[in-house]
Amino acid sequence: MYIVPEKEIAGLMTREAAFDAVEKVFAAMASGDAYNFPVVREAIGHEDALYGFKGGFDRAGLTLGLKAGGYWPNNLEKRGLINHQSTVFLFDPDTGRAKAMVGGNLLTALRTAAASSVSIKHLARKDAKVIGMIGAGHQATFQLRAALEQRPFEKVIGWNYHPDMLPNIEKVAAEAGVPFEAVDLPGMAEADVIISITSAFAPSLMADHVSPGTHIACMGTDTKGKQEVEAELLVKADVFTDEVAQSISIGEAQHAVAQGLIQETDVAQIGAVINGTNPGRTSDDQITLFDGTGVGLQDLAVAASVVDLAVARGIAIEVDF
Amino acid sequence: MYIVPEKEIAGLMTREAAFDAVEKVFAAMASGDAYNFPVVREAIGHEDALYGFKGGFDRAGLTLGLKAGGYWPNNLEKRGLINHQSTVFLFDPDTGRAKAMVGGNLLTALRTAAASSVSIKHLARKDAKVIGMIGAGHQATFQLRAALEQRPFEKVIGWNYHPDMLPNIEKVAAEAGVPFEAVDLPGMAEADVIISITSAFAPSLMADHVSPGTHIACMGTDTKGKQEVEAELLVKADVFTDEVAQSISIGEAQHAVAQGLIQETDVAQIGAVINGTNPGRTSDDQITLFDGTGVGLQDLAVAASVVDLAVARGIAIEVDF
Repeated sequence: MYIVPEKEIAGLMTREAAFDAVEKVFAAMASGDAYNFPVVREAIGHEDALYGFKGGFDRAGLTLGLKAGGYWPNNLEKRGLINHQSTVFLFDPDTGRAKAMVGGNLLTALRTAAASSVSIKHLARKDAKVIGMIGAGHQATFQLRAALEQRPFEKVIGWNYHPDMLPNIEKVAAEAGVPFEAVDLPGMAEADVIISITSAFAPSLMADHVSPGTHIACMGTDTKGKQEVEAELLVKADVFTDEVAQSISIGEAQHAVAQGLIQETDVAQIGAVINGTNPGRTSDDQITLFDGTGVGLQDLAVAASVVDLAVARGIAIEVDF
Repeated sequence: MYIVPEKEIAGLMTREAAFDAVEKVFAAMASGDAYNFPVVREAIGHEDALYGFKGGFDRAGLTLGLKAGGYWPNNLEKRGLINHQSTVFLFDPDTGRAKAMVGGNLLTALRTAAASSVSIKHLARKDAKVIGMIGAGHQATFQLRAALEQRPFEKVIGWNYHPDMLPNIEKVAAEAGVPFEAVDLPGMAEADVIISITSAFAPSLMADHVSPGTHIACMGTDTKGKQEVEAELLVKADVFTDEVAQSISIGEAQHAVAQGLIQETDVAQIGAVINGTNPGRTSDDQITLFDGTGVGLQDLAVAASVVDLAVARGIAIEVDF
């Protein structure tokens, strides 16, 4: 079996490879070739950690396994380690034997960025010029960097609850040669694409902050109670997601569904758009919203991709297991 | 992090170490220091495989992780590999980082054998002389070998649905210098201790096959629908288990509970007997029954033990992960 340590991922994995892997597995989910297992998520009562497993199987890509790990909130302060810690384990679906073990920290950031990029490719207007960022933390830089490759954006606008963090995304814009401007939330009306990537428990982006024709990718809500955008926005928008069951229970759609504003059947799989069985955007006035909840299959897909790269370049550690 | 490949386990792990690890973690479960996570078990629709994850956390032993793997029914015939395939992954509960990866196949056999042995130590009569085996497959040899170390047994009696498999356990008895006799099921009345280790879906051992004072370890039932002993036997017996929730849902107690013959509160944790908070056996006439359903914490406990041994002997493969 192969081992790809965390420290090797940055040198191996590209945004393009992550994009391809995530796009393909979203398509496989929508065609019924891939499915996620029930998620295990436990507050273990030690170091305030949340720990668990996200598994799945992709019959098309023959990818089987899980991401294990979670959130250790004291890591950075106590030990100088990042707080999100995860590892991906791949198994041979023909035999059940362990096939690969892959550092999952950077991969998680890349697959999350790839998900909003896939949604931009398939749902944003072709002539989108202004991208708005809500959130300016570490993960926001990944989302923006990936998004800037999907359209020839001419301007980045950004808002963050703590404005002193905005230089994080301003720097990414500068690297891409795109001007940046800090705005207030109503200022988001200028954006053609909006990515929200916060861990908020109350909406920042209101329905009237969004202009017709905008595509919004809500990437921060992955837990019951979290919320980034006003529930009414999901009524105005056509709503797409990675996995419908997660979207309506722990994703951004949980609130609109709970309030009876939309129904489960109003939420479509992004994979259906990729596969061409859902038309996706059909007009320049339509608001589209992607609810990215994060599924185990995304992790497995990018991990399988990086194992292939590591083996090809002789970087994977082979162990006779 | 450390890797202990499957092929090293046989040279490292002893029955004694497995016994100690399982006894300790059963005790920790009963004292509330250790708990198992929800089990994920999926028929993945490929190679007729069952795949899943059994995780848990032991705050006392600081053991966190999971066993991943399952049952690939075509492995042996198609590929010469064993059908049960599993791998144990341990994590550092202080940081969430991967700590060890351990071959889980032999460990699973050893921890299952250790569980019935722990039950014999704590629940069988001190003067037990005759041990009865129901089942004579591969796993039965592990159960018998471990059981023979718990009491000075003078005779092994055995029954199997296919009598041609009985030489498997006869050989183990011979190695221990104990005479063996094949019996019919009513002949089990001679036994002071009975271990049943089958994958049957209908009871073999009936209540009137069991004499007063006997200890029975039911080790085969781990799924809804499986059954090794008549439900009435659980009324006559004091019932103990590794984990009550599993015992009454997927273990041997599922049938007696479903039929209203016993209640959840009639099933006690074996760990409480180990800890001394449950008296266990209180008379020589009492029938005791251990419902061994198999929990993830057992796997983690034996894996942690074998990692310690492998590191101490310089056999663990260290990887800078």
